[in-house]
Amino acid sequence: MSRYVYDFNEGDASQKDLLGGKGANLAEMTNLGLPVPPGFTITTNACRAYLESGDQPPELGAEVDQHLTALEKEMGRTLGQADDPLLVSVRSGAKFSMPGMMETVLNVGLTDESVEGLTKISGSGRFAWDSYRRLLSMFGTTVLGVERALFDEALDGAKSARHVDGDLDLEVEDLRQLVATYKEIIAEHADREFPQDPREQLDLAVLAVFSSWNTDRAKIYRRREQIPDDLGTAVNVCAMVFGNLGDDCGTGVCFTRDPASGHQGVYGDYLPNAQGEDVVAGIRNTLPLTALGDRDQKSYDELLQIMETLERHYKDMCDIEFTVERGKLWMLQTRVGKRTAAAAFRIAMQLVDDKMIDKDEALRRVTGEQLANLMFPQFDKSGDLELIAKGMAASPGAAVGKAAFDSATAVAWAAEGEDVILVRRETNPDDLSGMIAAKGVVTSRGGKTSHAAVVARGMGRTCVVGVETLRVDPRKKDFRTPDGAHVQEGDVLSIDGSTGEVFNGDVPVMPSAVVEALLSQGQDEATQDSGARDDAAETDHAELVHAVTTLMEHADATRRMGVRANADTPEDAKRARVFGAQGIGLCRTEHMFLGSRRKLVERVVLAHTEEQRESALKELLPLQRDDFLGIFEAMDGLPVVVRLLDPPLHEFLPDLTDLSVKVAVAEALGEPDEAAAQLLKEVQRHDEQNPMLGMRGVRLGLVIPGLFLLQVRAIAEAAVELRKRGFDPRPEIMVPLVGDVKELAIIRAQAEATIKEVGAELEMDLTYLIGTMIELPRAAMTAREIAHEADFFSFGTNDMTQTTWGFSRDDVEAEFFPRYIDEGIFHVSPFETLDIAGVGRILSMAAWEGKETKSDLVLGVCGEHGGDPASIHFFETILIDYVSCSPFRVPIARLECARATLESTGSQQS
Amino acid sequence: MSRYVYDFNEGDASQKDLLGGKGANLAEMTNLGLPVPPGFTITTNACRAYLESGDQPPELGAEVDQHLTALEKEMGRTLGQADDPLLVSVRSGAKFSMPGMMETVLNVGLTDESVEGLTKISGSGRFAWDSYRRLLSMFGTTVLGVERALFDEALDGAKSARHVDGDLDLEVEDLRQLVATYKEIIAEHADREFPQDPREQLDLAVLAVFSSWNTDRAKIYRRREQIPDDLGTAVNVCAMVFGNLGDDCGTGVCFTRDPASGHQGVYGDYLPNAQGEDVVAGIRNTLPLTALGDRDQKSYDELLQIMETLERHYKDMCDIEFTVERGKLWMLQTRVGKRTAAAAFRIAMQLVDDKMIDKDEALRRVTGEQLANLMFPQFDKSGDLELIAKGMAASPGAAVGKAAFDSATAVAWAAEGEDVILVRRETNPDDLSGMIAAKGVVTSRGGKTSHAAVVARGMGRTCVVGVETLRVDPRKKDFRTPDGAHVQEGDVLSIDGSTGEVFNGDVPVMPSAVVEALLSQGQDEATQDSGARDDAAETDHAELVHAVTTLMEHADATRRMGVRANADTPEDAKRARVFGAQGIGLCRTEHMFLGSRRKLVERVVLAHTEEQRESALKELLPLQRDDFLGIFEAMDGLPVVVRLLDPPLHEFLPDLTDLSVKVAVAEALGEPDEAAAQLLKEVQRHDEQNPMLGMRGVRLGLVIPGLFLLQVRAIAEAAVELRKRGFDPRPEIMVPLVGDVKELAIIRAQAEATIKEVGAELEMDLTYLIGTMIELPRAAMTAREIAHEADFFSFGTNDMTQTTWGFSRDDVEAEFFPRYIDEGIFHVSPFETLDIAGVGRILSMAAWEGKETKSDLVLGVCGEHGGDPASIHFFETILIDYVSCSPFRVPIARLECARATLESTGSQQS
Repeated sequence: MSRYVYDFNEGDASQKDLLGGKGANLAEMTNLGLPVPPGFTITTNACRAYLESGDQPPELGAEVDQHLTALEKEMGRTLGQADDPLLVSVRSGAKFSMPGMMETVLNVGLTDESVEGLTKISGSGRFAWDSYRRLLSMFGTTVLGVERALFDEALDGAKSARHVDGDLDLEVEDLRQLVATYKEIIAEHADREFPQDPREQLDLAVLAVFSSWNTDRAKIYRRREQIPDDLGTAVNVCAMVFGNLGDDCGTGVCFTRDPASGHQGVYGDYLPNAQGEDVVAGIRNTLPLTALGDRDQKSYDELLQIMETLERHYKDMCDIEFTVERGKLWMLQTRVGKRTAAAAFRIAMQLVDDKMIDKDEALRRVTGEQLANLMFPQFDKSGDLELIAKGMAASPGAAVGKAAFDSATAVAWAAEGEDVILVRRETNPDDLSGMIAAKGVVTSRGGKTSHAAVVARGMGRTCVVGVETLRVDPRKKDFRTPDGAHVQEGDVLSIDGSTGEVFNGDVPVMPSAVVEALLSQGQDEATQDSGARDDAAETDHAELVHAVTTLMEHADATRRMGVRANADTPEDAKRARVFGAQGIGLCRTEHMFLGSRRKLVERVVLAHTEEQRESALKELLPLQRDDFLGIFEAMDGLPVVVRLLDPPLHEFLPDLTDLSVKVAVAEALGEPDEAAAQLLKEVQRHDEQNPMLGMRGVRLGLVIPGLFLLQVRAIAEAAVELRKRGFDPRPEIMVPLVGDVKELAIIRAQAEATIKEVGAELEMDLTYLIGTMIELPRAAMTAREIAHEADFFSFGTNDMTQTTWGFSRDDVEAEFFPRYIDEGIFHVSPFETLDIAGVGRILSMAAWEGKETKSDLVLGVCGEHGGDPASIHFFETILIDYVSCSPFRVPIARLECARATLESTGSQQS
Repeated sequence: MSRYVYDFNEGDASQKDLLGGKGANLAEMTNLGLPVPPGFTITTNACRAYLESGDQPPELGAEVDQHLTALEKEMGRTLGQADDPLLVSVRSGAKFSMPGMMETVLNVGLTDESVEGLTKISGSGRFAWDSYRRLLSMFGTTVLGVERALFDEALDGAKSARHVDGDLDLEVEDLRQLVATYKEIIAEHADREFPQDPREQLDLAVLAVFSSWNTDRAKIYRRREQIPDDLGTAVNVCAMVFGNLGDDCGTGVCFTRDPASGHQGVYGDYLPNAQGEDVVAGIRNTLPLTALGDRDQKSYDELLQIMETLERHYKDMCDIEFTVERGKLWMLQTRVGKRTAAAAFRIAMQLVDDKMIDKDEALRRVTGEQLANLMFPQFDKSGDLELIAKGMAASPGAAVGKAAFDSATAVAWAAEGEDVILVRRETNPDDLSGMIAAKGVVTSRGGKTSHAAVVARGMGRTCVVGVETLRVDPRKKDFRTPDGAHVQEGDVLSIDGSTGEVFNGDVPVMPSAVVEALLSQGQDEATQDSGARDDAAETDHAELVHAVTTLMEHADATRRMGVRANADTPEDAKRARVFGAQGIGLCRTEHMFLGSRRKLVERVVLAHTEEQRESALKELLPLQRDDFLGIFEAMDGLPVVVRLLDPPLHEFLPDLTDLSVKVAVAEALGEPDEAAAQLLKEVQRHDEQNPMLGMRGVRLGLVIPGLFLLQVRAIAEAAVELRKRGFDPRPEIMVPLVGDVKELAIIRAQAEATIKEVGAELEMDLTYLIGTMIELPRAAMTAREIAHEADFFSFGTNDMTQTTWGFSRDDVEAEFFPRYIDEGIFHVSPFETLDIAGVGRILSMAAWEGKETKSDLVLGVCGEHGGDPASIHFFETILIDYVSCSPFRVPIARLECARATLESTGSQQS
């Protein structure tokens, strides 16, 4: 039989699944001997049982009896005892923090009778009746479902009758009267009286907390935060202590370090003569924590001592809630505190330097996303800034540009080389072109899963959403704020996608200190400091650089997976190399066929004879060889995976609709354009309904063998030339879109023959690999066969996501992903984070069966998921050999690969 | 250690894998005591070992020694013995017949010495030297690789020197001279002398037969016939008997029944004083088999006796080769004979009626493709026909129409309602529109895997290819034949896709007798004979109808899988029902939104407000309800799977390019069309790069919920109305393109609410199922989850093939499938026959995991593979519950489902 109730002295911090985060930490503090008010925790199991059956488990009543009796014995009074009532708080506490989502009932145990006893014992009628009033209002709304506004109105009525503003200004008589009114409100709206049986209060409050797990707002929160729906919440029943019994009382929150910078010190707020909910309500201004020292040195010293104890015990920065009741300090809650990205790195490193944790543990404490945040350029906020509004940080970055209020304007200005910030009430699929053109996007509506947020993140655009104070007028093309700011089309804005801030004017942008540090590390040179900083900032900077570089070094020593970069140019390749890339995992060649070479490719496509085609291919050869020379040289000694031409040929031809219009208009005007008409016929011939599913990749290579072989020859010639110059080129030739082993076998045989030919002509042999993308479900399903012809597999997770789900990113992401996220179908776009259940299962089969067939088969990932932390952790589990991502994300991937290795080897926390 | 050689008396007919078809049947006949010349078979294992290592297996020589010695002992003379040589034939014989593909060497054992002995023994110098000449020529070409033409030229030279036409007219001296010449040719072109050691001749001949397995033509043949490459061939070494020793000798082939009609009787050809190769060469005209009776009654009677023995033994029609040597009958080969589709049914039924086989075995003897052949309309060939050419039968049917020599003309004429036959030298992707428009296609070039053949079969168009005698002139738009026929554009042609015949003029088309019989069977009415036939034809007809109807009844009693039809109209539904469909497996609803309703759908798509959309949907409701009324009524008592709207919305809008041209031209001419310009904006808004991967199926249903719910309401209202009228409608609602269970769950909840609403309004409840297409790899990978929300899975194998392979049928089938088939990547388009390795593996996982999750989950297949025999056999193995196909293919599916059940239950042959 499972047990449903644990005393605070029975659990510990590891039992968050069972006791919730709050309960587990209360137990930990109790066992540390810290002053926690006594109490007990009802487990998440009890909650789940209640939610499943609709009834509380039969054993629960007796267990609560037993623990309540023990609590009463310890406190020397009984719940709601008439002359000296024991009061308890009933608080939710799930495994993962869900701030503000679930319910709390305080002062349980007060009745018409015991309020008199409390008056006597506390010596304050005002306190006793105010506590009773608070219980009635919380119980009425939370347990009995009465609208909160009814209670608030009655309170406001009482205050205005007295002509006072604050609750503290009400007299005992006012509070007595309010209690009577509250009871009437309950009787009228809840169809029952407020229960005068303290135990009934407790039981009902517990069930109400259970039920609050399944409110709509809680469900929506969980969906967005990816918290499973079936965890349930624990309930903590705790003897009440009061920070509002007078001026020798108070309540506060504090951190053992600065959560913004990570620096050691005393950070926190204190509110005298108040309960915790007053701090949250924000009605009164808090004082700095040192104010407690001024008023009650003993409690303050004790608190500092406890903070040190907690940090040493948790080996991390802690976030603490406490109350002082008549000079006695009580700990109400602690947990490992949230922090900024920079603080996370500094704290982790300091703890290592202090020998509290080892470097493995430090890696567990920082994330790739935090590193990414530190790598974005940041605003230099040292000057005079005009902050005009703040919304939700939806996609990081610091963007500056002219405000455009519609997509057409954004596109037009961007085409002229202007930086643009697109400002909309909300975006929809029609705004896609504007979002692509803009440097950043601001909306006045919508949350982190709105269209603007989802699409901007997908594209890597800086984005701030839900800036509710912006009154955007798309007709007038301007917005105003309540504070009187007025921004018109063309005015310059600066937006911070990491903080949600919107500034008027051009805020200077600083390069990221972390990027500088990583680049220096990659180049093995001393850090070159680029900006002038004051001493404190200099120390901050040095600490951060020390933390990042040390932890990255350790990450490289720790990780199993290699990290390569997706890069198509020598410049990108060099950049990737200094960021730590161990090769190029994807060098796309299609970009090499654009621009001035487009005409040559057009000739290849439109050739009517083999001779015409050959002659065009011959002109392309030296150009293509130069492309590879540059890239192989930049990646000297490291592997470079060159993907043979992938996109449909008609991408190199003029647009069908544009050309049709041109031909028809010329004809209508009586000046027919023969050449255009002829070209149109060819374009029509190559037109495809679904080019993504058409003649591309290896299909092209089979239909126009000369095209792939031109590329193979260019690769081989470039590599041989470099070898002659003393370099060490390591080309790996990748065939795209293979669905059947025979496709690969044919291309492989042709390519090997060409390479041999080049070797003979230039009198130097070449070592190389030939492999394939695994980006179609069929390739994955037949991985065993394909492995026989491949030296490596590279998983193209973008295409694999497209075909596995049957949707193309271009066509559907903007159209319906925001809706799909709202409906809970996705938590995040499957193009951002790999869909493990579907695409992941397919990759996993292919990886397993490929390696099983050929143990030295190299497995890589070159889709965009290669730089996504959650996806990287999955790739570790299926034993991928390397991931490849954009140069900028290489450091993030290095860090996350190490974290994934630690996670999968399961080495224990230090 | 494996054994490589078997005497004819050691094997039997079941050992085709080891001994090849010919060897196994020679063994069987030997054991039956029939007069087979003694000999032995070298196994396919030996061939495989040789092909793998390049050397004959070391044990082989000794085994051949041993069997050769036994043979010599039995024959009383040794191989090549100077005074009385034993001669042997060395013939290939693979598991599957590959006519003309591999090699044979006769008369092995003749040398300069033994030819003299043979002269004496046979009493005929002409015979002996002719035999030697034949050996030299066969050995020279087959074993030593000398060009055949060199020998043919020498022979022609000898004949013209003599001024004679036939080989028989040459004198001994001529033949002696020819032998000398042949030996010189060999010495010169083979770089070695013809071996005078008989045993060396034998060994080299055996290896040459092994090697002939891997000639290019054999490989191409196997690829086309889907014969595995790794089987290898056996080699049969057999004492020579001679049909060319004089007028009391001869050779012939015969069948135990008429392979064209299936009638019992004596069918065959006889050629006196000849060897088998003379029959094949076709130089001399054969006589009817009865001619043997006229010449040699004893041998004839013995042959008839043997024919009966063989048919009784094999319990099937047999195809026999024999030789008479000086009045002694020898059996050289037998096998189960090939036959026409009609003969297959008649023979199977007769054997059942004669109690030689049971009905299960009869079902094994007929195929769905044979039934399909019998179901096509056929030409009435009783009148005067002008057969002008014959090519390869590439896609069955009887098509009549005006000859068009280019696609544009074909399209234009078809648009005017004309029937067209497209005539081309060969087709390419540009001809696709013409092929779609035409009733039939004829090409003068290309084989069964040419572009024309592959594409026509895919579209179900009648097609004849490779009509080499047609001299097509696309410029003049005509063709001529060597016989003087001249057909110009617009002349009427008739083409028979089952025989490859091309007729001038309009040949009358008769409906298929089998279709009539099946329809009568479906309607439980007496067969209504529609045409006038003579007595013999009447008997034929009655026999065929008896065979088909009896076997179809047995098929229905045997099969495990149900057969439903894909039908979108009441007419199709009725037709399917009389063809035996047990419900509708796929009722597409998109066709219901075309035609006059298009404007309404346009209003739904382009609605700017919910009200506009609602109003358009309301107008569609009664129309859609009427659609379902008709279909449910036609399928009273049987399930009807209605697929909710699947295609992308823009399919209901005007074409983007056309509209762009219209708007631009109007503007250029100074008469801007405001309405069109406005519509263009909307069309642009809905344009998709890859509509197949865009906003369609369940995605539409989630974005525009009203659309699906309109359909659900129409289904529910129609079903309730029919129930009120006493019918038994069984609607099954199918959600297309589901990739994640939550998509289905949301639609299911909405649909159930709507159905409940309709039930309440109309005061009658409804039973129904709600299920989903499984047509995306992700749906298959997450089948366990989806099964929880689905009453049935219907595998959409077309879309699944598209996404698994990442190609769309429209875009790639015509472009590169013919090339893929030629390259051996496909044997057949994966849209025709399911790709088992890739798509099949995915289906198999989903079927298994779906049933495992929910044991009463119904599994259907509604892609076009539901009517394809090979695919049906696969569906049986993964325990699909029913297949659904076009009404016309329902009988074929019924038959093949039964054959698949027999195959998978593995019940033994009777």
